[in-house]
Amino acid sequence: MTKVVVLGCGLSAFSRDRLDGSIRDWVTEAALAAIQDAGIEKDQLDHTIAAYESDHLAGQIGQGIIWQDTLGLIPRPVVRIEACGATGGLAIRNAFAHLRAGLSNCILIVGAERVGKSLSSATSSQIFAMSSDTDWEMPVGGHFTAYYALVMREHMRRYGTTEEQMALVSVKNHGNARYHPLAQKPMDLSVNDVMTSPVIASPFKLLDCSLLSDGAAALILATENWAKQNLNALKNRPAVYLTGSGAATDHARAGDRSWEVFAQFSAKKQAAEAAYAMAGIKNPLQEIDVAEVYDSYTGAELMAYEALGFCQPGESGKLAEQQVFDLAGELPVNPSGGLLGFGAAAGATGIAQAVEIVTQLRAEATVERQVKGAKLGLTDAHAGVCTINAVHIFESRD
Amino acid sequence: MTKVVVLGCGLSAFSRDRLDGSIRDWVTEAALAAIQDAGIEKDQLDHTIAAYESDHLAGQIGQGIIWQDTLGLIPRPVVRIEACGATGGLAIRNAFAHLRAGLSNCILIVGAERVGKSLSSATSSQIFAMSSDTDWEMPVGGHFTAYYALVMREHMRRYGTTEEQMALVSVKNHGNARYHPLAQKPMDLSVNDVMTSPVIASPFKLLDCSLLSDGAAALILATENWAKQNLNALKNRPAVYLTGSGAATDHARAGDRSWEVFAQFSAKKQAAEAAYAMAGIKNPLQEIDVAEVYDSYTGAELMAYEALGFCQPGESGKLAEQQVFDLAGELPVNPSGGLLGFGAAAGATGIAQAVEIVTQLRAEATVERQVKGAKLGLTDAHAGVCTINAVHIFESRD
Repeated sequence: MTKVVVLGCGLSAFSRDRLDGSIRDWVTEAALAAIQDAGIEKDQLDHTIAAYESDHLAGQIGQGIIWQDTLGLIPRPVVRIEACGATGGLAIRNAFAHLRAGLSNCILIVGAERVGKSLSSATSSQIFAMSSDTDWEMPVGGHFTAYYALVMREHMRRYGTTEEQMALVSVKNHGNARYHPLAQKPMDLSVNDVMTSPVIASPFKLLDCSLLSDGAAALILATENWAKQNLNALKNRPAVYLTGSGAATDHARAGDRSWEVFAQFSAKKQAAEAAYAMAGIKNPLQEIDVAEVYDSYTGAELMAYEALGFCQPGESGKLAEQQVFDLAGELPVNPSGGLLGFGAAAGATGIAQAVEIVTQLRAEATVERQVKGAKLGLTDAHAGVCTINAVHIFESRD
Repeated sequence: MTKVVVLGCGLSAFSRDRLDGSIRDWVTEAALAAIQDAGIEKDQLDHTIAAYESDHLAGQIGQGIIWQDTLGLIPRPVVRIEACGATGGLAIRNAFAHLRAGLSNCILIVGAERVGKSLSSATSSQIFAMSSDTDWEMPVGGHFTAYYALVMREHMRRYGTTEEQMALVSVKNHGNARYHPLAQKPMDLSVNDVMTSPVIASPFKLLDCSLLSDGAAALILATENWAKQNLNALKNRPAVYLTGSGAATDHARAGDRSWEVFAQFSAKKQAAEAAYAMAGIKNPLQEIDVAEVYDSYTGAELMAYEALGFCQPGESGKLAEQQVFDLAGELPVNPSGGLLGFGAAAGATGIAQAVEIVTQLRAEATVERQVKGAKLGLTDAHAGVCTINAVHIFESRD
C-alpha cells in the first residue's frame, strides 16, 4: 500500500476575537506557512481538503471553493470535510484516503474556524450547541459542558476520580502553552487556581474548559513516491510518515449509551485500536513518545488516557498525579498546550494537533516543550462527548 | 488498483415542503431502500459518507453523527462531505477514495437536504445565496439565477444560442419526469409554455430553473473483492462498476474567470477529462449511453453538453433541436427528469443522479424512460456556476 509522508505544516496564531482580517486570511496564513515549510511550489499541490465545522460561524456556506480560490489553487479539486469537533482529524483521514487511492499525489489539508465575531445574533457557544441534537437535546439544555459533566460525574463515582486530578490537566496544559509562541492562553496555574475558578457545570470550573479560538492550521501530505521524485526537502530533516488512521462513532445522546461503559470513551477506544492495528502498535504507553489528545475538558483528557490505552479504565487520575503525561513524564501529552492552553478552533484543531506532533517528531519545537528523541506520535480528536473520533499515528524516520 | 462496484441504491420521494417527518426520516427512507436493494444486512456496512449542503437549512450542525445514529450504524465511522451543489458528486468520489485506499470494504453514501420549511426567518433561496461569496458577491445581488444569466447571455452572444433552444431542455426534462414515479414536477410542456413563463433573470424564465426539493438519496459501494466474497446479489443482475472519477474547480466570481472561455464550464471540462482518462473513454458521445447532468438551469445543461465533450463549444443548442439528448436520441440526458423535472435536493442530487444511472445500467427503469441496452453511464454535478465539478463514470458488466 502507498506510503504517506508529511511534507509541511503551518499554523496561524490562535486567539479569541481576532480582528485582523477574515477567516480566509487566516487560512492563507496557515496554508502559505505549510507550503513554505514543505519547500514546494503551491502549483505542486493537486488537491485540497477544506475543514471547518459550521457555516453559521463565518456566515458563509461553501467555504471550500472560496479558500481554494483565495489560495490560487483553481482548477484543482477541493472538498470540505466536517465532523464537528473531529473535523480536522477526519480531514487528515480523507487526505490519507485520497493519497492511498491514487486520486492525489500531494494534498493540502487546511482547517479553520471563526468563532469570535459571529455575524448572527447568536453567540458562538449558542451556535456550537446546535451541534447537539436539536430535536432531542437542545430543548432540554443543549450545552456541551453539561453533557460532559454527566459523564464525568459517573467517572468520579465509579473510579474515585477527583476534581483535583482534573485540575492537574489544566495546570499542565496551560503551563505547556507557555512554551508555544502562537498559543492563546499560556498560564502559570496552581491546582487551587483551577479549583477556585467559577463553576460552569459541576464538576467543571472555568479553567477545566477548553478555549474558543479564531485560527487556522494546515498540513501537506504526499505519497512517498511522489515526494522522492519531486523533492529534496525530505533529505534535510527526519521524514515524518502517517502510518495509522482510525475512526469510530458513538451514540450522540448519553441516554442511548451502554451503562456498562458509560464512563469510557468507546469511540475513542475503537478508533485508537484501528489506528494501532494499522501502525503495528502493541503497547501504546511504551511505544508512543508524544501525543496531542482532545482536551475539550480536563476530564476528557483523563478519559482519553484510558480510551487510548495509556492506562486501564479508572487509573487516569492517579497517573496524572504521578506526572506521567507532563513534559518530563513518560508520555508527554499536549505539549502544545492543547485545546485548554493552545486553543480550540473547531475545524483547525485536529490539524493543529498534527502540526504539533510533526514539529515534535522533527525536533523543531521550542526547547522547553520539545520531547527529546520523539519518534512516534499520536493525534486524537473527537466531536461532541466523543461521538465521532479520529486517531492518527505519525512516525519519524531518519 | 481495487475495483469498485455498486451494490445498491435508494431514493426518497423528492418534493417541495415535505411535511412527513424530518430530514432524518428521509435519510432513513433512502438508506434502507439502498440496503434492501443491495441485499445486504446493514451491519455489513463499515463506513458512512453523509452529504448535505448547509446546517442552516435543517437547523442542525453536524448531521453526520445524527444520521449514523438514526440508521443504527454506530460504531462505524461517519464523515460529512460538502461541496455546495456538487456535494453528492464529491461524496461519491470520497467513498471511492475510501474503498480504493483500503479504509472501507462496503460503504454507504447518503445525501439529503431540507429546503422547504426553513427554521430561520430566511427563505431557502436566501440561504442558498449564502453559498455565493458573502464578502464580494452577496452585497451586489447574491442570487444564482442572475450569476448564471450573465454567463448564458454571453453564450447566446458568442454562439447564437437561443432561448427556444434552452426551452427544449425544459420540455425534455419535465417530460422525462413523467416516467419517474418519485419525480417532483412531471409536466407535459411546449416550448411556448417555457417561453411565456415568468422571467426570473433574463434569459431564464421560471420553467428554465431547477426545483428546490426536500429529499434524500443513497448509494452503497463496495470493493469487488469484498462483494464477491460476501454476496450472491451480483449474480442476479448486471454488476455496475464505478470506473471513473474526476473533479475540478473554477473561480467562484465570474469576474475572475478567463474571458476567452467565459461561456464554457471549464471545471466541468477538466473533471470530465479526468474521469474519461480513468475510465478509458475517448469519444464521449459515441461511447456513453446515458447521462445525468447538472441542469440547474436549462442553459446549464446546454453548456454541460459542450463541457462534457458531447459536442463542440457553441453547438449544444443545435443538437438540442436535433433531439440528440432526448430519450429516443443518440445519448439520452437526464432520463430521470433531472434537477428541472425530478427535483434538486442539494446534498442528495449528485447521489440521486447515480441512482438513476445505476437503475438504467441494470435495465430496471420504468419502461418509458429506460434507455435500451445502456452499458456506460455518466453523472455530472456542480456547485455555483460550475465552481466545483465532479464527474463519474459507471459501467455495467454482465
